[in-house]
Amino acid sequence: MRIEVLNTGTELLLGTTLNTHGAWIGRELLPLGLRVARQTTVPDGEPIADALREAVPRCGVIIVTGGLGPTSDDVTSAAVAEVIGAELVEDAGALRSIEEFFARLGRPMAESNRKQAMFPAGAEVLANPNGTAPGLYVAAENNRAGGCALFVLPGPPGELHPMFAAEVVPRLRELAGVDASRGMTELKFTGIGESDFHQGVDQALAEVAGLEVGYCARPGEVDLRLIGDEEARRAGREIAEDGFGRQLVSDDGTSLEEVVVRKLRERGWKLATAESCTGGMIASRVTDVPGASAVFTHGFVTYANEAKLGVLGVAEELLAEHGAVSEEVARAMAEGALDAAGADVAVAATGIAGPGGGSEEKPVGTVFLALAVRGGPTQVVKRMHPRGRSVFKRVVSQAALEMVRRVSIGG
Amino acid sequence: MRIEVLNTGTELLLGTTLNTHGAWIGRELLPLGLRVARQTTVPDGEPIADALREAVPRCGVIIVTGGLGPTSDDVTSAAVAEVIGAELVEDAGALRSIEEFFARLGRPMAESNRKQAMFPAGAEVLANPNGTAPGLYVAAENNRAGGCALFVLPGPPGELHPMFAAEVVPRLRELAGVDASRGMTELKFTGIGESDFHQGVDQALAEVAGLEVGYCARPGEVDLRLIGDEEARRAGREIAEDGFGRQLVSDDGTSLEEVVVRKLRERGWKLATAESCTGGMIASRVTDVPGASAVFTHGFVTYANEAKLGVLGVAEELLAEHGAVSEEVARAMAEGALDAAGADVAVAATGIAGPGGGSEEKPVGTVFLALAVRGGPTQVVKRMHPRGRSVFKRVVSQAALEMVRRVSIGG
Repeated sequence: MRIEVLNTGTELLLGTTLNTHGAWIGRELLPLGLRVARQTTVPDGEPIADALREAVPRCGVIIVTGGLGPTSDDVTSAAVAEVIGAELVEDAGALRSIEEFFARLGRPMAESNRKQAMFPAGAEVLANPNGTAPGLYVAAENNRAGGCALFVLPGPPGELHPMFAAEVVPRLRELAGVDASRGMTELKFTGIGESDFHQGVDQALAEVAGLEVGYCARPGEVDLRLIGDEEARRAGREIAEDGFGRQLVSDDGTSLEEVVVRKLRERGWKLATAESCTGGMIASRVTDVPGASAVFTHGFVTYANEAKLGVLGVAEELLAEHGAVSEEVARAMAEGALDAAGADVAVAATGIAGPGGGSEEKPVGTVFLALAVRGGPTQVVKRMHPRGRSVFKRVVSQAALEMVRRVSIGG
Repeated sequence: MRIEVLNTGTELLLGTTLNTHGAWIGRELLPLGLRVARQTTVPDGEPIADALREAVPRCGVIIVTGGLGPTSDDVTSAAVAEVIGAELVEDAGALRSIEEFFARLGRPMAESNRKQAMFPAGAEVLANPNGTAPGLYVAAENNRAGGCALFVLPGPPGELHPMFAAEVVPRLRELAGVDASRGMTELKFTGIGESDFHQGVDQALAEVAGLEVGYCARPGEVDLRLIGDEEARRAGREIAEDGFGRQLVSDDGTSLEEVVVRKLRERGWKLATAESCTGGMIASRVTDVPGASAVFTHGFVTYANEAKLGVLGVAEELLAEHGAVSEEVARAMAEGALDAAGADVAVAATGIAGPGGGSEEKPVGTVFLALAVRGGPTQVVKRMHPRGRSVFKRVVSQAALEMVRRVSIGG
């Protein structure tokens, strides 16, 4: 079953809005074992019908996004009607869905919104609880231009995503005859490079019958997607855990910072951060998690030496003797933060983000990370991440959070 | 001149990599007054030639990205050769460019990289100083399938972007007969909503002859792009400055945090931050700027009340009487940070990011920002940004940095 995606919107081609729908739909099809054969972006207006006319003869399913709004640019319904040879009629169900949306907002429906209920005759209305624009579905047998089914979905992600899950996925499962036990497991790993990870598991995973495998790497993390029936996914997971169980962060898409906050909360532990080269990014990531205030009280961004000295009590001799980027100073920062905050765990990072500040002995990318725990020994590790300032900050904050995760699971 | 973009790469359709090239190329064409008529994404392999065959008859120019690497997936050169009816031959110039790249790295060239010098006969080689894959240009008269010019560019952004600027833009200017005086001015504004901004200037800008206008809004900021000859752009800029001169952050694409670091540096001022609800994001944005250490010494993330009290010296009575989210505590945080850091300027933010923690009196989205200056009065402002946790943090950090920018320009 060939599936194509057609994204409509002049702003996508002007580049003022990034088209994330193509990639998002591709990811959502993966667990079903389906693929997008082609993705096309066209501006609002006549090009929509042109692109549809070309795609219908070669496709089993076309998923169209955007152009369902109330303004004069919004012509997707009319284009679909034209291409499939149906009349555009006011749909009573669609009109009710729009009226209900405005009733929930407590606002009167503008006359222009009435246009959003004009649908090709024979199309099914897909309810939109999150916006004014209902979606539409044309079954293959109602498409006079050829045996191709069409989904037409609203552009705003907050409306598209829930409608896709509720209305599109079940119909696609049926159209493509997807096995009901088929699904996806997403495992998040950190602290391991993509190529090492790949080399460690790819061969063994390839030998699992009925298992499809996808990798997605970002700085400091690798996601492994296992697609297949339950048994195939369990076998795949065992292989991945045998190789990299210690690096496994989550099996449900939960981010590292969310896991850290949850684990600290379970322990009843308080965290403090002492950051030099990451400049506040570790604290900012922790506080991205709702409810972080239960575990995070103090963050210290001690960018200058006098801050390390005055705020964290790092001894002047340590700074003079070893320099700010050193094992000794990282240790003193973590221990100083632990004391100053009265925390149970404290993590510290000091390094050279670049582009300036490197030396032969300590080149750009050098970083020391320290983890202090109440009543336990302080760990310090040295790493090299010569990868540009923004990737450096991201990777180092990832490594720091991973140290906190490890200690909070007793690992 | 109809221009289409063809992005190749299976990973773009699987959704593991977001296709940013389409939007990026769209933005780069704007200053030339050119538009992308359609953008298509296809997987590696045979679909590339299919898509090219369809596009050639309707286009003046096709810009292809990706698939120029050394592996077996990388078949773009061969697809172009097939479609334009040219033989694939080893290009001496391309081979030299690849060899030179490896020589600069001090590594031997692998035999597989030799494939990257196989080009359609008659194509021009576009040098790639940033990677192994040279690009290629087929002039319309060398395309036997029709009078359409083709650019083929490497996929990695670090290679594509410089090649586009150096090799594609000058050729497009000539092909499209773009007036040499035509260009783009990008003005960055902050502290004003998109619709207010639009309403304030759009009418007047529309009346400037020969001026094209583009808006791009992100949380807390609006970019205005003025496209046209020098005179039209100057007239447009005057209109924008008349309305919103105080909110103008930069006229060369420089970010707010970069402007803040530069202005503080010019003044010889040191900055400190005291963050509750932004959780380190203000500090992290400042330290994203290379050289931030010249102006930024101390950041305090005082998430808990005991941190505001212990680290910044906020009086217990203020917290008890007014609550942590109050004008009084914001003021005390900024003044406490100024003193603790020995800084010249300190900015503080305390608010309710949500989703929890709101009350009737202080709902989610309430925030107080304070700016303390050595020897001057402390300013405090109250804002409401009930926009979800991540947008809240971004918008509040933007407002805090804008207060620092204003004081550092004496505004």
